[in-house]
Amino acid sequence: MEPGDIIVRMTAASICGSDIHFITGEVPLEPDFIIGHEGVGVVEAVGTGVKSFKPGDRVAIPYMVWCGTCPECKAGRTYSCTADLQFGVGKARGDLPGLQAEYVRVPFADSSVAHIPDSVSDREALFVGDILSTGYIGVINGNIQPGDDVAIFGAGPVGLCAVACARLFSPSRIILVDLEDYRLEAGKRLGATHTINARHTRAGSEIRRITGGVGVQASIEASGAEAAVDDCLTCTAKGGIISAIGMTPFSIRLAMGKVFYKNLTIVSGYTSLHEMNRLLKLIEHKQLDLTSLITHEVPFSRILEGYRIFRDRLDNCIKVVVVPD
Amino acid sequence: MEPGDIIVRMTAASICGSDIHFITGEVPLEPDFIIGHEGVGVVEAVGTGVKSFKPGDRVAIPYMVWCGTCPECKAGRTYSCTADLQFGVGKARGDLPGLQAEYVRVPFADSSVAHIPDSVSDREALFVGDILSTGYIGVINGNIQPGDDVAIFGAGPVGLCAVACARLFSPSRIILVDLEDYRLEAGKRLGATHTINARHTRAGSEIRRITGGVGVQASIEASGAEAAVDDCLTCTAKGGIISAIGMTPFSIRLAMGKVFYKNLTIVSGYTSLHEMNRLLKLIEHKQLDLTSLITHEVPFSRILEGYRIFRDRLDNCIKVVVVPD
Amino acid sequence: MEPGDIIVRMTAASICGSDIHFITGEVPLEPDFIIGHEGVGVVEAVGTGVKSFKPGDRVAIPYMVWCGTCPECKAGRTYSCTADLQFGVGKARGDLPGLQAEYVRVPFADSSVAHIPDSVSDREALFVGDILSTGYIGVINGNIQPGDDVAIFGAGPVGLCAVACARLFSPSRIILVDLEDYRLEAGKRLGATHTINARHTRAGSEIRRITGGVGVQASIEASGAEAAVDDCLTCTAKGGIISAIGMTPFSIRLAMGKVFYKNLTIVSGYTSLHEMNRLLKLIEHKQLDLTSLITHEVPFSRILEGYRIFRDRLDNCIKVVVVPD
Amino acid sequence: MEPGDIIVRMTAASICGSDIHFITGEVPLEPDFIIGHEGVGVVEAVGTGVKSFKPGDRVAIPYMVWCGTCPECKAGRTYSCTADLQFGVGKARGDLPGLQAEYVRVPFADSSVAHIPDSVSDREALFVGDILSTGYIGVINGNIQPGDDVAIFGAGPVGLCAVACARLFSPSRIILVDLEDYRLEAGKRLGATHTINARHTRAGSEIRRITGGVGVQASIEASGAEAAVDDCLTCTAKGGIISAIGMTPFSIRLAMGKVFYKNLTIVSGYTSLHEMNRLLKLIEHKQLDLTSLITHEVPFSRILEGYRIFRDRLDNCIKVVVVPD
Repeated sequence: MEPGDIIVRMTAASICGSDIHFITGEVPLEPDFIIGHEGVGVVEAVGTGVKSFKPGDRVAIPYMVWCGTCPECKAGRTYSCTADLQFGVGKARGDLPGLQAEYVRVPFADSSVAHIPDSVSDREALFVGDILSTGYIGVINGNIQPGDDVAIFGAGPVGLCAVACARLFSPSRIILVDLEDYRLEAGKRLGATHTINARHTRAGSEIRRITGGVGVQASIEASGAEAAVDDCLTCTAKGGIISAIGMTPFSIRLAMGKVFYKNLTIVSGYTSLHEMNRLLKLIEHKQLDLTSLITHEVPFSRILEGYRIFRDRLDNCIKVVVVPD
Repeated sequence: MEPGDIIVRMTAASICGSDIHFITGEVPLEPDFIIGHEGVGVVEAVGTGVKSFKPGDRVAIPYMVWCGTCPECKAGRTYSCTADLQFGVGKARGDLPGLQAEYVRVPFADSSVAHIPDSVSDREALFVGDILSTGYIGVINGNIQPGDDVAIFGAGPVGLCAVACARLFSPSRIILVDLEDYRLEAGKRLGATHTINARHTRAGSEIRRITGGVGVQASIEASGAEAAVDDCLTCTAKGGIISAIGMTPFSIRLAMGKVFYKNLTIVSGYTSLHEMNRLLKLIEHKQLDLTSLITHEVPFSRILEGYRIFRDRLDNCIKVVVVPD
Repeated sequence: MEPGDIIVRMTAASICGSDIHFITGEVPLEPDFIIGHEGVGVVEAVGTGVKSFKPGDRVAIPYMVWCGTCPECKAGRTYSCTADLQFGVGKARGDLPGLQAEYVRVPFADSSVAHIPDSVSDREALFVGDILSTGYIGVINGNIQPGDDVAIFGAGPVGLCAVACARLFSPSRIILVDLEDYRLEAGKRLGATHTINARHTRAGSEIRRITGGVGVQASIEASGAEAAVDDCLTCTAKGGIISAIGMTPFSIRLAMGKVFYKNLTIVSGYTSLHEMNRLLKLIEHKQLDLTSLITHEVPFSRILEGYRIFRDRLDNCIKVVVVPD
Repeated sequence: MEPGDIIVRMTAASICGSDIHFITGEVPLEPDFIIGHEGVGVVEAVGTGVKSFKPGDRVAIPYMVWCGTCPECKAGRTYSCTADLQFGVGKARGDLPGLQAEYVRVPFADSSVAHIPDSVSDREALFVGDILSTGYIGVINGNIQPGDDVAIFGAGPVGLCAVACARLFSPSRIILVDLEDYRLEAGKRLGATHTINARHTRAGSEIRRITGGVGVQASIEASGAEAAVDDCLTCTAKGGIISAIGMTPFSIRLAMGKVFYKNLTIVSGYTSLHEMNRLLKLIEHKQLDLTSLITHEVPFSRILEGYRIFRDRLDNCIKVVVVPD
């Protein structure tokens, strides 16, 4: 145990779309490597150098940690932390065993981990370290002003978090696009004003129609589909922003001509501890509630069943939480 | 003549790379359509509604005009002006005959045309309406802070203007990339601290080497080459900006995975009358001087010779100016 | 009638706190000068140069007009328009007779006046040109992020508009300070989460207590009281912003030492046509509704009665509207 | 010695205007308390938790330290660090003995101290931790764009640093105001384009004259004189910024009416380790050189002589450096 470490007894972890790639073998993984990168728990022990935590503290853990002392962290660019440590993505891309475990060692706790306020439950705090932060950053980067219109592509967990976060900035229209009606319905409950099932309707042109031909000031790509990026180019108004938070293929075909002609900006983004704390305050003040995403809960001993439900989207599954037996 | 028009007697116009596409036939054009979209002149006559100009005023004309009264212009987004009028690009994409002419009608003069200060010569002001504005916007969008490093791809007229403009923001390193040594030399004279001939050296990795492995905080793509966009993804530091001002193919292959992993922003941009006036003030105060780009001058009667010199890059040509006989 | 003028038949105008100064004689005024600077109406006639309006259009008029063609307007700084024309403040400070009239001539209509959407009533649009714009700009300048805390000093019409606008940015706490309970109650209905009657409680320290000792990220001074500015210095967190939109005395005593020690920013601000249009869209989409401020309505023939009610705050008066007989 | 401490052998420290207040007794100080808050040295020893430094490293020390782990530091607001530790200002306002010493203990070194690049001399790096940082932040907060005009009030060490830093942003005019001709001359050598001796000329109106009646886009108050703040209000253009970095009296008289009418912003600011590193890079690349401010050098044993020279401005003194005997 390093001086900056804490040991956390996990009280809840969630299954993420990227975990599925390990299960299917699409992304190779060392045998017995623990996965999972979104979870909350209780501090069991702290290293000698830890200043912000003590045993018994309830904490939310981000999907990566930030050392706090490399030049990048010092400059406020924690996303570029040279330690480059992520949870549960295999040794090649981050040394840290994942959060779907009973106990987890979390290095650099002082600069990486958030306290959960007393009045916030574990389930309420669960998404703060990954999908909610990602959705929030996607919205922040879209620079939405009150009265703007925004389109969100993808009503998976990240896209749905983006819907809830977008509402905080008071756009007039939040137009949500997906292929699954039950997810679009979930989006409506979180604040989407319009939904489009892209199986039946061409999203780009429909969004232009809804916005009186102008297009949206910001589009948030949370689906990872190459075609959705192209729809963003179509439906974003001149001078607008495309905020990309979905995991598209490594290389895509991009209509750069539209980027130029329409004077667009494409932006991606990472979260930080600062944003996590902000989100926890919003949850504490009842301004954000993403617990409706938790459609299923399984104990650790039946985690494989949870993976199956999540992968096959059984029973209108959105998000599966794994809890101790 | 509409109330908002002015008639300008042209004293200088320049030949631009995009004009070459009309000459070669790559871009079709109506017979007898006048081209040219960068020029300066003297006001000959003004419409009844013109408030800012009178005959005898020396003016710089932008490559497009802004009506000033559509909702986009009113919101400060002149680049989206619904009048959508450009000079010299054919009737399909803009009604306005071009600036390579003796006299030009300029609509919406009050909201589009800049006064040239008395102490600024025509040659000094010539590039304000197109390449210098474009270079400046490219630099602005790169958000360069003093001490940052910047890479500029393409040492054509736009890229060279970007070099001169970048210097205004005091980056520590301005690394210029091109395939032609004489253009790289011109860039050095304008402020490039390092040059790379991409015929002989892989620019992306060389830039990383020069910057101690960190990469540049901003890269400015002014070459239009698809490969240069990819080099930008390689050489830009995490969290950095790629400012695209070159005319790439309409559709390119983009390594979106790098955009995500490195937390990059891709931004394009248009100029405005406001920027033109700022550039003229900088020229007036001897802070910018792009006259060294003018390697050749021909009278209107020999304009085709000018086109040949420019197209074939004869005699280390960078920019050809056309002046009255 | 100038080419850019429109003639508006007023359907509603409001009485503003600054109008009272004319009535009391505190601010001298030419005899028979028409006052009033907040109103809506229907276009009766348009000048030959007007492009955006036609008779019958419903319009909201700002408290000043912007010529759209001076260098300041062209640079997007309409607040510095060199025409410097305000409605109803006397000839010394603006030539324009005011809006408490049956018909009003509005110069520079294309660059100054907003269309009222069909589904927005006159009463809903009434405050767009002055107090709502002012409140909105005050909030914008406070740079409120979701989860921040904000204090608003003054629950007069401008402060109440600021409350409603602040909510659009999702602060966790909106703490409203005033001396009148009925106005604080009105603030609660518009979104204030906490209210302080400064007759009984020291606002600065109470706000620090509510925010756990941290203070608010932004304070908005809408009372015009010198003491309130001092409270802002006390209750604003380090690094925070004081957004001043109240009419304080011309010269005040300022604890510059606190500004330094706490690294504060003090900012004022003006509205623009762009913001007016944004506000009208928010009203159209039911995101803003300030009609609850209209506590009293009088016909033109009884306008003096309206002034008396407003001045003496009779019957819990907040805002008096004057309508045609 | 705490785990995060380093011990620095000082190779140079400077005397600052605020030190004089201790000498004169204006600001009371504990007997034998060591003062000084601007210096450079060599690391002699490091605590067990220090990661960024080793004995022999050359370092620049800021006037305060930042713990790096309090909520404020984590949020990037190091200026609000709850540790609140400054060097050499007395026990009441910061526990740390000052830098005018042979050896200094520096807590929180990893998050507070900057490495001096090999090619940068001690004298070149000396001002990075206080006056140069302060001048730079003053300029940053002024948001100067190329071609803007800027006024700087006060040609003391901080104001002269502001002149050198302002030049990095390419304003067209840098107008420097002071009461001493020799300091104005020093400012000219650092980049001031105009100087005004306020003994003989009313600075506010003269600046308006120089700028063609418009005023400056930013004024930087580095004199601490209440009258200079008023001049800033006079000479700053509508919509401009007043960046206050001078130590004015705790409470001043402020013409708030001008702030409103002219739509001004008043901003103060603190430095950070991030800015110190940026400044050191600029010095390394020969873009900043403030060594000309060092008019006098004394050994520690004759430090009182140095204080006398500095206080009485003997022999055109600007800055006195104290070096080991």
